[in-house]
Amino acid sequence: MYKTARLCSSGLSWKEFGKKLNRSQCRSRILCQVNLFNRSLSTESAQKTLSSKNNDQQHSNNEREFDSTGYAVTTKLCFALGITGSVIWLLNRKRNIVHAAQSESAGSLKKGLPTYSLEEVAKHNKKENRIWVTYKNGVYDITDYVSNHPGGSRILLAAGSSIEPYWEMYAAHKQEEIYEMLEELRIGNITEKSKDEQKDSSDPYANDPKRHIALKPSSSKPFNAEPPLSLLRHSYLTPNDLFFVRNHLPVPVIDPKKYQLTVTKVGSTKQVNLSLEDLKRKFNKKSVVSIVQCAGNRRSEMVTIKPVKGLNWGAAAISNASWAGACLDDVLKRTGIDIETVDAKHIIFDGADADPTGHNYGASIPIEMARLLKKDIILAYEMNGKDIPQDHGYPVRVIIPGVVGARQVKWLNKITLSDKESTCHWQQKDYKGFHSSIDWHNVDFTSVPPIYELPVQSVICEPEAGSVLEDDEEVTVKGYAWSGGGRGIVRVDLSADGGKTWHSAELSPTEQPLYKTYAWTFWEGTIPLPKDHKGEVEIVCKAADTAYNVQPDNVEGIWNLRGVLSNAWHRVPVKVPKS
Amino acid sequence: MYKTARLCSSGLSWKEFGKKLNRSQCRSRILCQVNLFNRSLSTESAQKTLSSKNNDQQHSNNEREFDSTGYAVTTKLCFALGITGSVIWLLNRKRNIVHAAQSESAGSLKKGLPTYSLEEVAKHNKKENRIWVTYKNGVYDITDYVSNHPGGSRILLAAGSSIEPYWEMYAAHKQEEIYEMLEELRIGNITEKSKDEQKDSSDPYANDPKRHIALKPSSSKPFNAEPPLSLLRHSYLTPNDLFFVRNHLPVPVIDPKKYQLTVTKVGSTKQVNLSLEDLKRKFNKKSVVSIVQCAGNRRSEMVTIKPVKGLNWGAAAISNASWAGACLDDVLKRTGIDIETVDAKHIIFDGADADPTGHNYGASIPIEMARLLKKDIILAYEMNGKDIPQDHGYPVRVIIPGVVGARQVKWLNKITLSDKESTCHWQQKDYKGFHSSIDWHNVDFTSVPPIYELPVQSVICEPEAGSVLEDDEEVTVKGYAWSGGGRGIVRVDLSADGGKTWHSAELSPTEQPLYKTYAWTFWEGTIPLPKDHKGEVEIVCKAADTAYNVQPDNVEGIWNLRGVLSNAWHRVPVKVPKS
Repeated sequence: MYKTARLCSSGLSWKEFGKKLNRSQCRSRILCQVNLFNRSLSTESAQKTLSSKNNDQQHSNNEREFDSTGYAVTTKLCFALGITGSVIWLLNRKRNIVHAAQSESAGSLKKGLPTYSLEEVAKHNKKENRIWVTYKNGVYDITDYVSNHPGGSRILLAAGSSIEPYWEMYAAHKQEEIYEMLEELRIGNITEKSKDEQKDSSDPYANDPKRHIALKPSSSKPFNAEPPLSLLRHSYLTPNDLFFVRNHLPVPVIDPKKYQLTVTKVGSTKQVNLSLEDLKRKFNKKSVVSIVQCAGNRRSEMVTIKPVKGLNWGAAAISNASWAGACLDDVLKRTGIDIETVDAKHIIFDGADADPTGHNYGASIPIEMARLLKKDIILAYEMNGKDIPQDHGYPVRVIIPGVVGARQVKWLNKITLSDKESTCHWQQKDYKGFHSSIDWHNVDFTSVPPIYELPVQSVICEPEAGSVLEDDEEVTVKGYAWSGGGRGIVRVDLSADGGKTWHSAELSPTEQPLYKTYAWTFWEGTIPLPKDHKGEVEIVCKAADTAYNVQPDNVEGIWNLRGVLSNAWHRVPVKVPKS
Repeated sequence: MYKTARLCSSGLSWKEFGKKLNRSQCRSRILCQVNLFNRSLSTESAQKTLSSKNNDQQHSNNEREFDSTGYAVTTKLCFALGITGSVIWLLNRKRNIVHAAQSESAGSLKKGLPTYSLEEVAKHNKKENRIWVTYKNGVYDITDYVSNHPGGSRILLAAGSSIEPYWEMYAAHKQEEIYEMLEELRIGNITEKSKDEQKDSSDPYANDPKRHIALKPSSSKPFNAEPPLSLLRHSYLTPNDLFFVRNHLPVPVIDPKKYQLTVTKVGSTKQVNLSLEDLKRKFNKKSVVSIVQCAGNRRSEMVTIKPVKGLNWGAAAISNASWAGACLDDVLKRTGIDIETVDAKHIIFDGADADPTGHNYGASIPIEMARLLKKDIILAYEMNGKDIPQDHGYPVRVIIPGVVGARQVKWLNKITLSDKESTCHWQQKDYKGFHSSIDWHNVDFTSVPPIYELPVQSVICEPEAGSVLEDDEEVTVKGYAWSGGGRGIVRVDLSADGGKTWHSAELSPTEQPLYKTYAWTFWEGTIPLPKDHKGEVEIVCKAADTAYNVQPDNVEGIWNLRGVLSNAWHRVPVKVPKS
């Protein structure tokens, strides 16, 4: 059962899982769970391989096969499957109830119920105050349900806030039966007015959007926050609400009808202005699944060596989304600029976010890099199939796959071809890498080029640091890996004895070419614990990319004054029960 | 004087050097030396910036300025300048002698002199047997000259062999005065017949070419050898004779008139054959300066952890040359194949070198990689302006910049577009990277992709390991750095205290775009020695490339069964005199 659970909770080993099930003669009964789990995978691959038509047909077949024996198997599996299993449990519990609620009506305004502000809902995040959650416009009291939730206490991540981001991750919740059960717990409607009414007009951050309560802020103004590491690993495409946020300035509010993107070249009198509608209608829509990673991801590990200037990021200042929009190359071509031949050395991207003196955020990339990436740089207006949220650049953000987040300018309103780099502070005096003997008294920011592509990275998401393992013989480790410049991950190595012995993790396929891998690679492995542990073990991971670049052994050798480029072997101390 | 010597021996800091000289009021006198040194730099940049006309004019001006005071300055500098200084010393000694010898006649056959075989010359490599060297067809006895050689004992590197590769590096030797002096030492002519006559026709290696005596073999059949590390760093373009040699099989002898390159695609009936003349005349000649590095470079450091299978390479299994030939993309286009749209996943390159069973060497690269490199992959027939030598692939070798040497197939005779990788042993069962717990009993060569691009690398060439420093306060360190995939070097860090404190090395410009840097980067730095040394110091270097990938701290973490990808921080122990 342990092994099955391990496999079920990964998106990787279904073939192998299928073989095992065949052997144990219960293939048909479990198929439903497999199918449901596939639905919960929000990967492009899953979406591609399962057309909705086939999916529905399979589901219907599976329901017919879901007899009382299946019920028994499922109930047992629930405990192993966690939140995925919970859906199955619920499906069984509710299968004889008439499907009255529709997904469209769930969470819509209901007359006759009291109205609560989001602030009021937020106060109800503990059992003592009753536990409330929201779904669209609905407010629900789930206090009495929590103990029945087969996914366990994970449901409390949504306490006092919206369950929607979690349902994006655990998409199997999106079933009529679940919507219906949710509405049974309905206590009211929400309104967002209250906060707006209280807005302080002198506060430049007054127009910042509401953020999801699960995001852990490293600063509030400007807002910077990352999701819990264990949640990050549960969804190949990070839900928009849980995507880490890195803002340098207040979030601008842009009217999509008035939005204009200006394209120009230094020394040219020609200037082209494009509306949002122009971008959507005049150019083919192209999509790419691509990571955004902050240069300061894992900075908190550097701080353990000596202080650095920067937000104290954990290892979740990275997220993965499917972006869609117009191809930069197409836009430049339509405005008379051929990226291959244009007489310019850099492409400058300017954002609408500005400081009180009017200086805006901006960045640039070398023209050679733009040529190499050519068809893959996107002026994105969609993130995971929706309008890009306000925090992530609404209405348009440039996506430059394989490159540090700082160059993927949000609220993009100007593109300039130039012989010079962007003069913006964050291009010139930040986001560069120095050795550990250079500090603020002797730094020369002109001595090295800006960070563009990022180095190979891997992180253990599960188990989390400090957690207590259930087993004292082996541990299942899960995480992400990624490298800049489209270099795919060829290997992730795991050790539970400080690097004396290594084990190969199993890599989930990204479905991107190995030399144009812009998405992250999820990996998983079950490795033996050392026999001589004294109640504590350090789990270590390290990755290699297609250029066989590896992570440095220790953070000491890569410490730098800004705490960027932190990619040493990831080390996670855990506790092991003594047998 | 120490500082000047340091600057003179680098190709980098001439601007700074010029400023210093201005200050010391002796600019005009030293200019000649600068000019001569510039001539000795065989970099493309030096060749580009100094047209021969300007060069001659400057030289003539400088000669006029070379008065008796200049003589005194020069004599003192000789000791600091080493072999470069020696040329100046010789120039002065010989300046009143009539220029009788011509560079064209130096080394040509001279009637009436005895004839020696190369084997006979090779025996004369010590003072006891007299020291002979060759230059073209000439044999010279330099025994009595050695003690006068201002470059010191370096001249003995050529003892028993040709001085030509050294003069390629120290190009300042190429002066009428030097040729003339050399001819004064002439004792005979050489013939290469003797060895041919003795050839063992049953030996598959019987047709292997004669190699330069300075190459240190790691195996003789097949021949594999690297130049001395200190010599490697003296020439930006490695002279052909000193370029490291990596052969997997006997060297084939190919008649250039009969040479044919076949271009085809699996499943297509079309096959195009191109002669050497076709390649030279039907296509534009394109050149690229690019490294070739063996995947096993620095393997000897891995062996210190535990044994590996492979040639025991030092850190000089890497060299840099200017390659010229037809662009692969052009050749494919002319044969009806568009690299951007062709329905194939790999490009297979086959060589004419084969084992006794007829299996030839071959390799392939993914089509996506070929698309990214497109215009930079060359079917080279020239190496540093000459026909590619027999050991390096005569008449045609494919140059794939940024990629491991093993894929840059020599004696190229077939190009095949295919859905499959090359089936060659060295593509399938070799040149892949594993973690250190995988050994021959549990290796699965299908579990990781082949090595193509190589990771970031840097090596200290001077001082050499075990050498005794002259100074006990500081040390001048010189080396090379490089990274795969065209990623330029942005930083080299140096430490003499085990990484507690770091110093930035000065990087010589490569004149290649930072994101298409295929040549190596030479670097140099003078760093303080720790005060508490006990007669021994370990000097360390590490580099970062444009993706800020760094070298791993220790070789333990990257040990692998084939000893490839050895790129840990380079550590060189040296002895320091106690003050």
